[in-house]
Amino acid sequence: MQLPSTLLENSVAEFAKLPGIGKKTALRLVLHLLKQEEATTTHFSEVLQKMRKEIQFCQRCFNISDGSICSICANSGRKKDTICVVENIRDVIAIENTQQFNGTYHVLGGIISPLDGIGPEQLTIEPLIDRVSKDKVTELIFALNPNIQGDTTIYYIQKKLNKSNCLITTIARGIAFGGELEYADEMTLGKSISNRQPIHQYIK
Amino acid sequence: MQLPSTLLENSVAEFAKLPGIGKKTALRLVLHLLKQEEATTTHFSEVLQKMRKEIQFCQRCFNISDGSICSICANSGRKKDTICVVENIRDVIAIENTQQFNGTYHVLGGIISPLDGIGPEQLTIEPLIDRVSKDKVTELIFALNPNIQGDTTIYYIQKKLNKSNCLITTIARGIAFGGELEYADEMTLGKSISNRQPIHQYIK
Repeated sequence: MQLPSTLLENSVAEFAKLPGIGKKTALRLVLHLLKQEEATTTHFSEVLQKMRKEIQFCQRCFNISDGSICSICANSGRKKDTICVVENIRDVIAIENTQQFNGTYHVLGGIISPLDGIGPEQLTIEPLIDRVSKDKVTELIFALNPNIQGDTTIYYIQKKLNKSNCLITTIARGIAFGGELEYADEMTLGKSISNRQPIHQYIK
Repeated sequence: MQLPSTLLENSVAEFAKLPGIGKKTALRLVLHLLKQEEATTTHFSEVLQKMRKEIQFCQRCFNISDGSICSICANSGRKKDTICVVENIRDVIAIENTQQFNGTYHVLGGIISPLDGIGPEQLTIEPLIDRVSKDKVTELIFALNPNIQGDTTIYYIQKKLNKSNCLITTIARGIAFGGELEYADEMTLGKSISNRQPIHQYIK
Protein backbone atom coordinates (compact mmCIF):
# COMPACT_ATOMS: atom_id res chain seq x y z
CA MET A 1 0.00 0.00 0.00
CA GLN A 2 1.54 3.26 -1.20
CA LEU A 3 0.63 6.33 0.80
CA PRO A 4 0.80 9.89 -0.55
CA SER A 5 2.70 11.37 2.41
CA THR A 6 5.55 10.26 4.65
CA LEU A 7 3.91 11.90 7.68
CA LEU A 8 0.84 9.77 7.03
CA GLU A 9 2.99 6.71 6.44
CA ASN A 10 4.82 7.12 9.76
CA SER A 11 1.58 7.47 11.70
CA VAL A 12 0.08 4.42 10.00
CA ALA A 13 3.24 2.44 10.81
CA GLU A 14 2.98 3.47 14.48
CA PHE A 15 -0.66 2.38 14.78
CA ALA A 16 0.10 -0.86 12.94
CA LYS A 17 2.63 -1.76 15.66
CA LEU A 18 -0.25 -2.18 18.12
CA PRO A 19 -1.55 -5.75 18.51
CA GLY A 20 -4.42 -6.75 16.23
CA ILE A 21 -4.15 -3.61 14.09
CA GLY A 22 -3.15 -4.09 10.47
CA LYS A 23 -2.12 -1.46 7.97
CA LYS A 24 -5.64 -0.94 6.62
CA THR A 25 -7.17 -0.45 10.06
CA ALA A 26 -4.26 1.81 11.00
CA LEU A 27 -4.95 3.97 7.96
CA ARG A 28 -8.63 4.24 8.92
CA LEU A 29 -7.67 5.37 12.41
CA VAL A 30 -5.19 7.96 11.17
CA LEU A 31 -7.64 9.36 8.61
CA HIS A 32 -10.21 9.57 11.41
CA LEU A 33 -7.80 11.67 13.47
CA LEU A 34 -7.15 13.85 10.42
CA LYS A 35 -10.87 14.54 10.10
CA GLN A 36 -11.07 15.74 13.70
CA GLU A 37 -9.73 18.99 15.11
CA GLU A 38 -5.99 19.14 15.82
CA ALA A 39 -6.86 19.37 19.54
CA THR A 40 -8.31 15.84 19.47
CA THR A 41 -4.98 14.34 18.45
CA THR A 42 -3.14 16.50 20.97
CA HIS A 43 -5.47 15.39 23.77
CA PHE A 44 -5.23 11.73 22.71
CA SER A 45 -1.42 11.89 22.76
CA GLU A 46 -1.21 13.72 26.05
CA VAL A 47 -3.57 11.34 27.87
CA LEU A 48 -1.49 8.37 26.69
CA GLN A 49 1.81 9.95 27.67
CA LYS A 50 0.53 11.00 31.08
CA MET A 51 -0.81 7.51 31.69
CA ARG A 52 2.44 5.83 30.67
CA LYS A 53 4.48 8.21 32.79
CA GLU A 54 2.42 8.31 35.95
CA ILE A 55 0.82 4.90 36.23
CA GLN A 56 2.23 2.71 38.96
CA PHE A 57 2.07 -0.91 39.96
CA CYS A 58 0.74 -1.80 43.39
CA GLN A 59 3.71 -2.71 45.62
CA ARG A 60 1.75 -5.56 47.20
CA CYS A 61 -0.15 -7.25 44.37
CA PHE A 62 1.40 -5.70 41.20
CA ASN A 63 -2.00 -4.65 39.93
CA ILE A 64 -2.17 -1.33 38.06
CA SER A 65 -2.63 1.54 40.45
CA ASP A 66 -2.81 5.33 40.64
CA GLY A 67 -0.68 5.23 43.82
CA SER A 68 1.78 2.87 45.48
CA ILE A 69 -1.02 0.62 46.82
CA CYS A 70 -3.96 -0.28 44.55
CA SER A 71 -7.59 0.35 45.49
CA ILE A 72 -8.24 -3.36 46.10
CA CYS A 73 -5.31 -3.81 48.52
CA ALA A 74 -6.19 -0.52 50.23
CA ASN A 75 -9.80 -1.62 50.77
CA SER A 76 -10.13 -2.83 54.37
CA GLY A 77 -13.26 -4.81 53.45
CA ARG A 78 -11.25 -7.24 51.27
CA LYS A 79 -9.82 -10.34 52.91
CA LYS A 80 -6.03 -10.12 53.02
CA ASP A 81 -5.71 -13.84 53.85
CA THR A 82 -7.25 -15.00 50.57
CA ILE A 83 -5.14 -14.34 47.48
CA CYS A 84 -6.19 -15.01 43.91
CA VAL A 85 -3.12 -15.54 41.73
CA VAL A 86 -3.54 -14.36 38.13
CA GLU A 87 -1.32 -13.97 35.10
CA ASN A 88 -2.06 -10.36 34.20
CA ILE A 89 -4.13 -7.27 34.91
CA ARG A 90 -6.81 -8.23 32.39
CA ASP A 91 -7.58 -11.27 34.56
CA VAL A 92 -8.01 -9.05 37.63
CA ILE A 93 -10.49 -6.90 35.72
CA ALA A 94 -12.38 -9.97 34.48
CA ILE A 95 -12.69 -11.49 37.96
CA GLU A 96 -13.62 -8.15 39.55
CA ASN A 97 -16.44 -7.83 37.04
CA THR A 98 -17.99 -11.09 38.32
CA GLN A 99 -18.33 -9.49 41.81
CA GLN A 100 -17.88 -13.00 43.24
CA PHE A 101 -14.49 -12.54 44.92
CA ASN A 102 -13.84 -10.65 48.12
CA GLY A 103 -10.15 -11.40 48.66
CA THR A 104 -7.07 -9.75 47.19
CA TYR A 105 -5.05 -10.51 44.06
CA HIS A 106 -1.50 -11.22 43.07
CA VAL A 107 -0.48 -10.45 39.48
CA LEU A 108 2.37 -12.70 38.35
CA GLY A 109 3.11 -10.67 35.23
CA GLY A 110 3.18 -13.81 33.07
CA ILE A 111 3.56 -17.55 33.51
CA ILE A 112 6.61 -19.78 33.48
CA SER A 113 7.32 -20.55 29.84
CA PRO A 114 10.88 -21.68 29.08
CA LEU A 115 10.19 -21.65 25.32
CA ASP A 116 9.48 -17.90 25.50
CA GLY A 117 12.43 -17.38 27.83
CA ILE A 118 10.24 -16.62 30.85
CA GLY A 119 11.55 -18.15 34.06
CA PRO A 120 10.33 -17.82 37.67
CA GLU A 121 12.73 -14.96 38.37
CA GLN A 122 11.00 -12.72 35.80
CA LEU A 123 7.67 -13.16 37.56
CA THR A 124 6.54 -11.79 40.92
CA ILE A 125 6.76 -15.20 42.62
CA GLU A 126 9.20 -14.16 45.39
CA PRO A 127 6.93 -11.34 46.60
CA LEU A 128 4.01 -13.79 46.55
CA ILE A 129 5.86 -16.26 48.80
CA ASP A 130 6.67 -13.35 51.15
CA ARG A 131 3.01 -12.28 51.25
CA VAL A 132 1.83 -15.81 52.08
CA SER A 133 3.90 -15.90 55.27
CA LYS A 134 3.59 -12.21 56.16
CA ASP A 135 -0.18 -11.91 55.72
CA LYS A 136 -0.86 -15.39 57.18
CA VAL A 137 -2.62 -16.36 53.97
CA THR A 138 -5.08 -19.23 54.45
CA GLU A 139 -6.05 -19.80 50.82
CA LEU A 140 -4.24 -19.29 47.54
CA ILE A 141 -6.58 -19.54 44.54
CA PHE A 142 -4.90 -20.05 41.19
CA ALA A 143 -6.85 -18.51 38.32
CA LEU A 144 -4.42 -19.29 35.48
CA ASN A 145 -5.28 -20.36 31.98
CA PRO A 146 -5.51 -24.16 31.74
CA ASN A 147 -2.41 -25.15 29.79
CA ILE A 148 0.99 -26.69 30.42
CA GLN A 149 2.63 -23.35 31.29
CA GLY A 150 -0.14 -22.59 33.77
CA ASP A 151 0.21 -26.00 35.40
CA THR A 152 4.00 -25.64 35.56
CA THR A 153 3.63 -22.29 37.30
CA ILE A 154 1.18 -23.72 39.85
CA TYR A 155 3.50 -26.69 40.50
CA TYR A 156 6.53 -24.41 40.95
CA ILE A 157 4.79 -22.10 43.44
CA GLN A 158 3.28 -25.07 45.29
CA LYS A 159 6.76 -26.57 45.78
CA LYS A 160 8.12 -23.25 47.03
CA LEU A 161 5.28 -23.11 49.58
CA ASN A 162 5.58 -26.68 50.86
CA LYS A 163 6.38 -25.57 54.41
CA SER A 164 3.35 -23.30 54.59
CA ASN A 165 0.02 -24.89 55.41
CA CYS A 166 -2.21 -22.59 53.37
CA LEU A 167 -4.90 -24.20 51.24
CA ILE A 168 -4.10 -24.17 47.54
CA THR A 169 -7.03 -24.27 45.11
CA THR A 170 -7.68 -23.61 41.47
CA ILE A 171 -10.78 -22.16 39.81
CA ALA A 172 -13.24 -24.82 38.63
CA ARG A 173 -12.84 -26.18 35.11
CA GLY A 174 -15.87 -27.50 33.31
CA ILE A 175 -18.54 -26.82 30.75
CA ALA A 176 -19.24 -23.09 30.48
CA PHE A 177 -22.73 -21.73 31.08
CA GLY A 178 -24.42 -21.50 27.72
CA GLY A 179 -21.90 -23.99 26.31
CA GLU A 180 -23.10 -27.11 24.53
CA LEU A 181 -21.89 -30.53 25.63
CA GLU A 182 -21.50 -31.87 22.10
CA TYR A 183 -19.10 -29.06 21.13
CA ALA A 184 -16.98 -29.25 24.30
CA ASP A 185 -13.47 -30.67 23.84
CA GLU A 186 -12.76 -34.10 25.30
CA MET A 187 -10.36 -32.81 27.95
CA THR A 188 -12.89 -30.38 29.41
CA LEU A 189 -15.80 -32.78 29.21
CA GLY A 190 -13.73 -35.59 30.73
CA LYS A 191 -12.55 -33.38 33.62
CA SER A 192 -16.08 -32.11 34.21
CA ILE A 193 -17.31 -35.69 34.62
CA SER A 194 -14.49 -36.83 36.90
CA ASN A 195 -14.82 -33.65 39.00
CA ARG A 196 -18.63 -33.80 39.16
CA GLN A 197 -20.27 -31.91 42.02
CA PRO A 198 -23.16 -32.86 44.31
CA ILE A 199 -26.25 -30.85 43.37
CA HIS A 200 -26.53 -29.20 46.80
CA GLN A 201 -23.02 -27.78 46.31
CA TYR A 202 -23.85 -26.59 42.84
CA ILE A 203 -26.98 -24.66 43.80
CA LYS A 204 -25.86 -23.35 47.16
CA MET B 1 -16.09 -2.73 32.99
CA GLN B 2 -14.48 -1.34 36.14
CA LEU B 3 -10.82 -0.42 35.81
CA PRO B 4 -8.38 -0.16 38.73
CA SER B 5 -6.94 3.22 37.77
CA THR B 6 -8.34 6.49 36.43
CA LEU B 7 -5.23 7.02 34.31
CA LEU B 8 -5.89 3.67 32.67
CA GLU B 9 -9.58 4.48 32.32
CA ASN B 10 -8.87 7.79 30.56
CA SER B 11 -6.50 6.14 28.09
CA VAL B 12 -8.98 3.36 27.36
CA ALA B 13 -11.71 5.97 26.80
CA GLU B 14 -9.46 7.84 24.35
CA PHE B 15 -8.69 4.72 22.30
CA ALA B 16 -12.35 3.70 22.37
CA LYS B 17 -13.26 6.98 20.63
CA LEU B 18 -11.51 5.75 17.49
CA PRO B 19 -13.77 4.07 14.92
CA GLY B 20 -14.16 0.29 15.22
CA ILE B 21 -12.40 0.12 18.60
CA GLY B 22 -14.49 -0.99 21.57
CA LYS B 23 -13.61 -0.82 25.24
CA LYS B 24 -12.12 -4.33 25.35
CA THR B 25 -9.86 -3.72 22.35
CA ALA B 26 -8.91 -0.33 23.76
CA LEU B 27 -7.86 -1.97 27.02
CA ARG B 28 -5.72 -4.49 25.14
CA LEU B 29 -3.98 -1.66 23.26
CA VAL B 30 -3.33 0.36 26.43
CA LEU B 31 -1.98 -2.68 28.31
CA HIS B 32 0.27 -3.34 25.33
CA LEU B 33 1.69 0.19 25.59
CA LEU B 34 2.16 -0.34 29.34
CA LYS B 35 4.22 -3.45 28.65
CA GLN B 36 6.55 -1.51 26.34
CA GLU B 37 9.17 1.04 27.35
CA GLU B 38 7.92 4.53 28.15
CA ALA B 39 9.78 5.76 25.04
CA THR B 40 7.45 3.73 22.80
CA THR B 41 4.40 5.66 23.99
CA THR B 42 6.27 8.96 23.72
CA HIS B 43 7.33 8.18 20.15
CA PHE B 44 3.82 7.03 19.22
CA SER B 45 2.31 10.26 20.57
CA GLU B 46 4.89 12.51 18.99
CA VAL B 47 4.55 10.95 15.54
CA LEU B 48 0.76 11.42 15.66
CA GLN B 49 1.00 15.02 16.84
CA LYS B 50 3.61 15.92 14.23
CA MET B 51 1.48 14.33 11.52
CA ARG B 52 -1.69 16.16 12.60
CA LYS B 53 0.15 19.46 12.83
CA GLU B 54 2.23 19.37 9.66
CA ILE B 55 0.18 17.43 7.18
CA GLN B 56 -1.32 19.49 4.39
CA PHE B 57 -3.92 19.05 1.71
CA CYS B 58 -2.92 19.48 -1.92
CA GLN B 59 -4.17 22.87 -3.12
CA ARG B 60 -5.18 21.42 -6.49
CA CYS B 61 -6.76 18.03 -5.74
CA PHE B 62 -7.20 18.07 -1.93
CA ASN B 63 -5.30 14.82 -1.56
CA ILE B 64 -3.11 14.46 1.53
CA SER B 65 0.32 15.93 0.94
CA ASP B 66 3.60 16.73 2.65
CA GLY B 67 3.69 20.07 0.83
CA SER B 68 1.26 22.45 -0.85
CA ILE B 69 1.04 20.29 -4.02
CA CYS B 70 0.80 16.50 -3.70
CA SER B 71 3.20 14.09 -5.38
CA ILE B 72 0.58 13.03 -7.95
CA CYS B 73 -0.23 16.59 -9.08
CA ALA B 74 3.49 17.45 -9.07
CA ASN B 75 4.31 14.47 -11.29
CA SER B 76 4.72 15.74 -14.87
CA GLY B 77 4.06 12.23 -16.20
CA ARG B 78 0.43 12.25 -15.02
CA LYS B 79 -2.22 13.57 -17.41
CA LYS B 80 -3.63 16.83 -16.08
CA ASP B 81 -6.57 16.72 -18.50
CA THR B 82 -8.02 13.51 -17.03
CA ILE B 83 -9.42 13.85 -13.52
CA CYS B 84 -10.77 11.01 -11.41
CA VAL B 85 -13.29 12.37 -8.88
CA VAL B 86 -13.36 10.46 -5.57
CA GLU B 87 -15.04 10.88 -2.22
CA ASN B 88 -12.02 10.61 0.07
CA ILE B 89 -8.32 9.93 0.34
CA ARG B 90 -8.79 6.19 0.93
CA ASP B 91 -10.27 5.97 -2.58
CA VAL B 92 -7.17 7.67 -4.05
CA ILE B 93 -4.96 5.11 -2.31
CA ALA B 94 -7.13 2.22 -3.52
CA ILE B 95 -7.07 3.39 -7.15
CA GLU B 96 -3.34 4.18 -7.03
CA ASN B 97 -2.69 0.63 -5.86
CA THR B 98 -4.32 -0.75 -9.05
CA GLN B 99 -1.64 1.07 -11.13
CA GLN B 100 -4.27 1.41 -13.88
CA PHE B 101 -4.75 5.17 -13.82
CA ASN B 102 -2.38 7.76 -15.17
CA GLY B 103 -4.42 10.93 -14.69
CA THR B 104 -4.87 13.13 -11.62
CA TYR B 105 -7.47 13.07 -8.85
CA HIS B 106 -9.93 15.36 -7.20
CA VAL B 107 -10.95 14.57 -3.62
CA LEU B 108 -14.46 15.88 -2.89
CA GLY B 109 -14.14 15.37 0.87
CA GLY B 110 -17.53 13.64 1.00
CA ILE B 111 -20.68 13.34 -1.10
CA ILE B 112 -23.87 15.38 -1.16
CA SER B 113 -26.08 13.94 1.58
CA PRO B 114 -28.83 16.30 2.83
CA LEU B 115 -29.77 13.82 5.60
CA ASP B 116 -26.27 14.15 7.09
CA GLY B 117 -26.32 17.90 6.54
CA ILE B 118 -23.72 17.78 3.77
CA GLY B 119 -24.46 20.15 0.90
CA PRO B 120 -22.39 21.02 -2.21
CA GLU B 121 -20.81 24.02 -0.49
CA GLN B 122 -19.08 21.79 2.07
CA LEU B 123 -17.39 19.81 -0.69
CA THR B 124 -14.59 20.84 -3.04
CA ILE B 125 -16.97 21.13 -6.02
CA GLU B 126 -16.20 24.79 -6.86
CA PRO B 127 -12.43 24.15 -7.16
CA LEU B 128 -13.24 21.13 -9.36
CA ILE B 129 -15.33 23.26 -11.76
CA ASP B 130 -12.45 25.76 -11.88
CA ARG B 131 -9.94 23.00 -12.65
CA VAL B 132 -12.08 21.66 -15.51
CA SER B 133 -11.95 24.98 -17.38
CA LYS B 134 -8.44 25.99 -16.32
CA ASP B 135 -6.71 22.70 -17.12
CA LYS B 136 -8.82 22.09 -20.28
CA VAL B 137 -9.97 18.78 -18.84
CA THR B 138 -11.12 16.32 -21.49
CA GLU B 139 -12.45 13.56 -19.23
CA LEU B 140 -13.94 13.54 -15.77
CA ILE B 141 -14.16 10.01 -14.33
CA PHE B 142 -16.48 9.61 -11.35
CA ALA B 143 -15.33 6.87 -8.96
CA LEU B 144 -18.00 7.29 -6.28
CA ASN B 145 -19.74 4.56 -4.34
CA PRO B 146 -22.89 3.39 -6.15
CA ASN B 147 -25.71 4.78 -4.04
CA ILE B 148 -28.25 7.60 -4.16
CA GLN B 149 -25.88 10.15 -2.61
CA GLY B 150 -23.18 9.25 -5.13
CA ASP B 151 -25.63 9.61 -8.02
CA THR B 152 -26.91 12.93 -6.66
CA THR B 153 -23.35 14.24 -6.46
CA ILE B 154 -22.61 13.18 -10.05
CA TYR B 155 -25.86 14.79 -11.26
CA TYR B 156 -25.11 18.04 -9.44
CA ILE B 157 -21.58 18.36 -10.83
CA GLN B 158 -22.77 17.36 -14.32
CA LYS B 159 -25.35 20.18 -14.28
CA LYS B 160 -22.73 22.67 -13.12
CA LEU B 161 -20.51 21.64 -16.04
CA ASN B 162 -23.19 21.74 -18.75
CA LYS B 163 -21.39 24.46 -20.74
CA SER B 164 -18.14 22.52 -20.79
CA ASN B 165 -17.74 19.79 -23.38
CA CYS B 166 -15.55 17.43 -21.37
CA LEU B 167 -16.49 13.76 -21.41
CA ILE B 168 -18.08 12.56 -18.17
CA THR B 169 -17.74 8.87 -17.32
CA THR B 170 -18.14 6.62 -14.32
CA ILE B 171 -16.17 3.51 -13.36
CA ALA B 172 -17.75 0.28 -14.59
CA ARG B 173 -20.25 -1.47 -12.35
CA GLY B 174 -20.67 -5.22 -12.61
CA ILE B 175 -19.80 -8.58 -11.17
CA ALA B 176 -16.49 -8.46 -9.29
CA PHE B 177 -13.64 -10.77 -10.29
CA GLY B 178 -13.88 -13.83 -8.09
CA GLY B 179 -17.51 -12.99 -7.33
CA GLU B 180 -20.21 -15.59 -7.92
CA LEU B 181 -23.21 -14.84 -10.11
CA GLU B 182 -25.71 -16.58 -7.84
CA TYR B 183 -24.73 -14.42 -4.85
CA ALA B 184 -24.72 -11.08 -6.72
CA ASP B 185 -27.56 -8.71 -5.84
CA GLU B 186 -30.26 -8.16 -8.48
CA MET B 187 -29.32 -4.53 -9.11
CA THR B 188 -25.68 -5.36 -9.91
CA LEU B 189 -26.51 -8.44 -11.98
CA GLY B 190 -29.25 -6.56 -13.85
CA LYS B 191 -26.92 -3.64 -14.66
CA SER B 192 -24.13 -6.00 -15.68
CA ILE B 193 -26.47 -7.61 -18.24
CA SER B 194 -27.86 -4.38 -19.65
CA ASN B 195 -24.34 -2.86 -19.82
CA ARG B 196 -22.77 -5.99 -21.34
CA GLN B 197 -19.51 -5.50 -23.23
CA PRO B 198 -18.29 -6.97 -26.53
CA ILE B 199 -15.61 -9.57 -25.84
CA HIS B 200 -12.92 -7.71 -27.86
CA GLN B 201 -13.42 -4.69 -25.57
CA TYR B 202 -13.25 -6.89 -22.49
CA ILE B 203 -9.97 -8.57 -23.34
CA LYS B 204 -8.19 -5.64 -24.96
